[in-house]
Amino acid sequence: MKRNINVVSLTQTPIEEQQIELVERKCIGHPDSIADGVAEAVSRALCCEYETYCDAVLHHNTDQGEVVAGASIPSFGGGKIVRPIYLLLTGRATKHFEGHVIPTDAVSVEAARKYLAETLPTLNMERDVIVDCRMGDGSTDLCDVFKTCGQNLVPRANDTSFGVGHAPFSEVEQIILAMDKEITETLRPKHPMIGYDIKIMGLRNGDKMTFTIASAMVDRYCSSIDDYVNMTAVMSEKLQSVAGKYTSRKVEVAVNTADDIANNSLFLTVNGTSAEMGDDGSVGRGNRINGLITPNRPMSMEAASGKNPINHIGKIYNLLATEIAQEACMKVDGITEMYVRLLSQIGKPIDHPLVASVQIIPEKGVDFKAVSRDVEEIVNDRLSNISSITERVIKGELKTF
Amino acid sequence: MKRNINVVSLTQTPIEEQQIELVERKCIGHPDSIADGVAEAVSRALCCEYETYCDAVLHHNTDQGEVVAGASIPSFGGGKIVRPIYLLLTGRATKHFEGHVIPTDAVSVEAARKYLAETLPTLNMERDVIVDCRMGDGSTDLCDVFKTCGQNLVPRANDTSFGVGHAPFSEVEQIILAMDKEITETLRPKHPMIGYDIKIMGLRNGDKMTFTIASAMVDRYCSSIDDYVNMTAVMSEKLQSVAGKYTSRKVEVAVNTADDIANNSLFLTVNGTSAEMGDDGSVGRGNRINGLITPNRPMSMEAASGKNPINHIGKIYNLLATEIAQEACMKVDGITEMYVRLLSQIGKPIDHPLVASVQIIPEKGVDFKAVSRDVEEIVNDRLSNISSITERVIKGELKTF
Amino acid sequence: MKRNINVVSLTQTPIEEQQIELVERKCIGHPDSIADGVAEAVSRALCCEYETYCDAVLHHNTDQGEVVAGASIPSFGGGKIVRPIYLLLTGRATKHFEGHVIPTDAVSVEAARKYLAETLPTLNMERDVIVDCRMGDGSTDLCDVFKTCGQNLVPRANDTSFGVGHAPFSEVEQIILAMDKEITETLRPKHPMIGYDIKIMGLRNGDKMTFTIASAMVDRYCSSIDDYVNMTAVMSEKLQSVAGKYTSRKVEVAVNTADDIANNSLFLTVNGTSAEMGDDGSVGRGNRINGLITPNRPMSMEAASGKNPINHIGKIYNLLATEIAQEACMKVDGITEMYVRLLSQIGKPIDHPLVASVQIIPEKGVDFKAVSRDVEEIVNDRLSNISSITERVIKGELKTF
Amino acid sequence: MKRNINVVSLTQTPIEEQQIELVERKCIGHPDSIADGVAEAVSRALCCEYETYCDAVLHHNTDQGEVVAGASIPSFGGGKIVRPIYLLLTGRATKHFEGHVIPTDAVSVEAARKYLAETLPTLNMERDVIVDCRMGDGSTDLCDVFKTCGQNLVPRANDTSFGVGHAPFSEVEQIILAMDKEITETLRPKHPMIGYDIKIMGLRNGDKMTFTIASAMVDRYCSSIDDYVNMTAVMSEKLQSVAGKYTSRKVEVAVNTADDIANNSLFLTVNGTSAEMGDDGSVGRGNRINGLITPNRPMSMEAASGKNPINHIGKIYNLLATEIAQEACMKVDGITEMYVRLLSQIGKPIDHPLVASVQIIPEKGVDFKAVSRDVEEIVNDRLSNISSITERVIKGELKTF
Repeated sequence: MKRNINVVSLTQTPIEEQQIELVERKCIGHPDSIADGVAEAVSRALCCEYETYCDAVLHHNTDQGEVVAGASIPSFGGGKIVRPIYLLLTGRATKHFEGHVIPTDAVSVEAARKYLAETLPTLNMERDVIVDCRMGDGSTDLCDVFKTCGQNLVPRANDTSFGVGHAPFSEVEQIILAMDKEITETLRPKHPMIGYDIKIMGLRNGDKMTFTIASAMVDRYCSSIDDYVNMTAVMSEKLQSVAGKYTSRKVEVAVNTADDIANNSLFLTVNGTSAEMGDDGSVGRGNRINGLITPNRPMSMEAASGKNPINHIGKIYNLLATEIAQEACMKVDGITEMYVRLLSQIGKPIDHPLVASVQIIPEKGVDFKAVSRDVEEIVNDRLSNISSITERVIKGELKTF
Repeated sequence: MKRNINVVSLTQTPIEEQQIELVERKCIGHPDSIADGVAEAVSRALCCEYETYCDAVLHHNTDQGEVVAGASIPSFGGGKIVRPIYLLLTGRATKHFEGHVIPTDAVSVEAARKYLAETLPTLNMERDVIVDCRMGDGSTDLCDVFKTCGQNLVPRANDTSFGVGHAPFSEVEQIILAMDKEITETLRPKHPMIGYDIKIMGLRNGDKMTFTIASAMVDRYCSSIDDYVNMTAVMSEKLQSVAGKYTSRKVEVAVNTADDIANNSLFLTVNGTSAEMGDDGSVGRGNRINGLITPNRPMSMEAASGKNPINHIGKIYNLLATEIAQEACMKVDGITEMYVRLLSQIGKPIDHPLVASVQIIPEKGVDFKAVSRDVEEIVNDRLSNISSITERVIKGELKTF
Repeated sequence: MKRNINVVSLTQTPIEEQQIELVERKCIGHPDSIADGVAEAVSRALCCEYETYCDAVLHHNTDQGEVVAGASIPSFGGGKIVRPIYLLLTGRATKHFEGHVIPTDAVSVEAARKYLAETLPTLNMERDVIVDCRMGDGSTDLCDVFKTCGQNLVPRANDTSFGVGHAPFSEVEQIILAMDKEITETLRPKHPMIGYDIKIMGLRNGDKMTFTIASAMVDRYCSSIDDYVNMTAVMSEKLQSVAGKYTSRKVEVAVNTADDIANNSLFLTVNGTSAEMGDDGSVGRGNRINGLITPNRPMSMEAASGKNPINHIGKIYNLLATEIAQEACMKVDGITEMYVRLLSQIGKPIDHPLVASVQIIPEKGVDFKAVSRDVEEIVNDRLSNISSITERVIKGELKTF
Repeated sequence: MKRNINVVSLTQTPIEEQQIELVERKCIGHPDSIADGVAEAVSRALCCEYETYCDAVLHHNTDQGEVVAGASIPSFGGGKIVRPIYLLLTGRATKHFEGHVIPTDAVSVEAARKYLAETLPTLNMERDVIVDCRMGDGSTDLCDVFKTCGQNLVPRANDTSFGVGHAPFSEVEQIILAMDKEITETLRPKHPMIGYDIKIMGLRNGDKMTFTIASAMVDRYCSSIDDYVNMTAVMSEKLQSVAGKYTSRKVEVAVNTADDIANNSLFLTVNGTSAEMGDDGSVGRGNRINGLITPNRPMSMEAASGKNPINHIGKIYNLLATEIAQEACMKVDGITEMYVRLLSQIGKPIDHPLVASVQIIPEKGVDFKAVSRDVEEIVNDRLSNISSITERVIKGELKTF
């Protein structure tokens, strides 16, 4: 059956030419990101458990749960946690299958704790966090859908829903992702004072970019206010230089500007996340699956993290749409900007969306027909291989936030 | 001080001319909407308590919490709840103020239960729901901000953040809101079988609109499968006719198409919400403040419901941006489409955003300068009266989801 | 089969001749009593549900759970609850039976809330208390036992355990029970200021009795410290006069002696129970099934409240042993004091204990053989009619604390 | 001030001459004992925290909390935990003191997890258990009492309450304690299959003793039903031989008699405790402070574990009364049996009880006056050194269950 792929030319001011652009990223230790990361880790662990014991991934959606903030008293040289973070796992997962009992609660708690220990190595897992679980049972109707996948059939869509993606990333978008990478791979390993809860807000106003960064600092590695202020200066400088690689526009980087140094009101933390001291987090409230929040771009409200990777449209189509856009922009010449929307039909095979809608802002003078044909081919190929998304999600190769 | 208001002409295919448009609304009893509604009700109750006992609204953000699904066995004529819905209230609120203790937990639990009882009158509050509370204490730094409001000063922004709004509503957007109104004000009062958890998904593909509606049915008012099927037919017909008032395009309305009637797999519920039987809900995952999810439009990821209405940019600016766009479109001629973005600067008075950015798709041949001037005036006026947003939120006059 | 009934003469100083006697009662609103009362109410509600839908009482033991204290600010004329009491229902109950699903969680939450509303009418059920539930599923093995009872067979003992009872009640014991009755039936109806959380501690030292009473007062009915002090005086006087009806010994009654009037440190409460403001409660930590704590008497540690009334020895044998002792003392002359112990054998019919051991302190000169024969007959009769205990427990006719 | 010590001769059939004697012990891994052990570990950890940071032990009582059973699927060779045990810590502890914040929640969670890991080494702490905390704040009034102890004053009693103790232990009592020791120190180290949740019920009927032992087995160390049955035989034999060292009466030892081997209904567990699979536990429902439940003896209902060791009468007097009885029986000749009761007066120094009442069944022909004088001296000495109880409790040298 031929797929319904619709490629059109879009008349729109490209993002780089718009006056105002706003982009945000909540890094790995932000409470909302913690919630996302745990939800996804739990889903992956359930997938493995199901595959091992049932030869199929059973129905589950663990895209829920709540990070309830604790209380802490940070202090130069090392403070203490007063009340642990409380993390409630909810959602649902199939607990019984052909006579087997699947230990979904135990698996979920273990996966969540493992994820936390690995992601926030500063956390004292015996004292600083409580992981609770009130996960429900999977619904019987949907279970059916999942069994088919053992028979190499394409799963059917769980809902009438959609996914969106765009490419290429704008300068601001690229810079934010590069800053995150720089912090994670270079700065923090060298400066353990830099915490995990970092929010990067990028604003481009015409040709001026301002990156406002709120970064938790880990108190045990910070001996004084001078130490602290010095680290914000180091971060500013290094991240400024990262930005310079992606743009020739004017760039300003401000780290922890909300601090009131005079009143000792700093973003100092015991473990490097505000979840320890007042900020709650929820799944699906932070980054979209491309790692960014981009109010200038079409976005899906869907919480991808924790959704089952077999037939949940809100997860699979968002991931796929983004990959399609990225591949097309890389391989096909003549594309200034591209938006992909995949719409499902509940109950129909997921490789046949109701419509795969592609909007392209073409470069001046390009042969749009040729572009269109090449892009359509990529869309078609990707849809044919849609199960690759599922497999890579389960292996943890695809980020969801 | 002059406000930084930036009005530009936007080159973009207007929404009605785009090939594909997708809009969604989660009605009042959808688990995510329940979470939103409770969060907002709790915030409003805290505002009243603070005003009564402290003469000021103190710091709080109750935009958190989780609706953990229960279990039920619906049955024609009336089934039963097996496991209650579990609703966890989190977030934080100032508990001590100038020697007073504010009973934030008791107030929150009461407000949540009251909201549920009023919004889902089918619920047996003694049996079908558990309202739990793990609300934290407000942070001291931010408390300061709030005291000023007793002195008629403009509060300062809590964050570097933004709000977005657009007008006018497209046909699909208008129809979805009108359908919701029809159900709430006319259909349900006449047909109590119609539940509260209704999801309306509108898809326009060129000149064809499809509205896919998933509506819970209340089993005690539904005696048989014929009764059920009949009700979906009634809804389809009535909502089709609603749509006809807003468009001359082709319209298709499908109610509960996911049902598998042959296998008795229906959206039958005891109380009219899927929260009773498997679907969790979270604050901020559903509708934006205009009541819709609009992936074709710029959206804010911010969860407005439950945020404090004094200085929380993510709440106030989203509400204000939407009101500005609506007023401008109504009062100023020559606007095809309009997008408003308000960007805050943390720590600065909220009536002076870093930039108020307005993008207008003007009608052909219009004097953009004149349009621009009139719009700027409206923006300026609205910003001057920004406290009106706060007041109306507290009174419950503004919807947040 | 003949029952193994063993009646012996006991050489022991009768309680009234011992130098020191200590007896305690935690009245209906004491946190431990609240826990007991809720546990028993939940069990009774489950029994009814099971009987209605399964024609048999299925396995359950709800003798668990925790009353976690809230926080309150009492105040003359009426204070407020700051943090609700949190009540966690645990234990286990059979949730599936021959294809039926029994809504044990919903039934339990409803029963607990109903019990609280009736027992502590001062409580604002929408604001002052959270009833949560984490009840497990019943074990399959024991379920079998319960089905037999539908076939009019005698249930088999769930454990190797025992029950104890004594009669007659000593003067101190009688007085404490009479005081409780006076408060409940006469004083509180007239003086609503008198709360529900009352602890009566009776100490007899030779011929002098001291009753130390700690009684919560309900602030909305108490306008001032004079009002409060006056009420303690009224209680002292009335309860003194109650004591006079049961003893000719010297009696002292002290109400709320721990108060430090000068420092306004009173037992003033919003709702009449310390559970609102700091004191937790647990099932089985308070009164024994005769309503008393009697360290001078043999006691069972078993928590009777919430245990299933079909085959749980710790519940049934404690109730039965007490009834046997009371009936025997009433009907058979010549008994000064009597102790009954019933020992079960796990897996054997409960009407055939391993041994029914009766110890009697006979009156001087009595024909012990005759006494013994009469008592044995009563024991035998009562064991033959053991199912009467079960029936009356389900009907709520027997107190368990 | 002279202490009120009252020593009397008791006319009573000594325990060894009574026809029926019943004694029970719930070993370390029984759900009620887990609750007790955790409660006491938490109290000790708080004592250390308070001493370190406040130079005094502040008010707390952590004698609450609930072990909510999980679910497991044991299997020969190693099964799995399906749902973790949920452990709720409640009670209350002083959180603020002279400007310091004491991290009572974090300390409590850490102490509980540490205790569980050490006591039940089979537990996978990342997967098999959830430790949650809803601990309240300490009451201000009682805090005062505790400060005095920094000034070497004797604390004042927190309540009108009492403690009881007896000596010497009967044969049955001794045997049960010896069996527990044998299992812990010799059998389990050699046979890791032997679990931690063991209930020993001893019944003496005249000169025949029956010890009914229910012992969890750890499935990973048990390869088959033969293995299992063999282990019960080994335990029976070894424990029989332990009993032989303490009595010349006839002894029967039955291990896991409730098993239905034919139906594979065994006490097989994953981790060696029934808390993993259906049995809840509560503080204060198991052993008294001498490690036993002795319905033939006077008992206190007080839950000692978790009570503060500074001024909580229910803890201190029970421990002290038992030590007094044991010392007296060891040092003073002529005592057949002895009961000690210590009664407090609320608000009075704890080394001056209202009355210290000692009942002695003297040996025939002994000079009771001399015995009485020697015993009184011991009582007086022990009361003078009452703070030794507190110190040893904090160090963990005294068992409370």
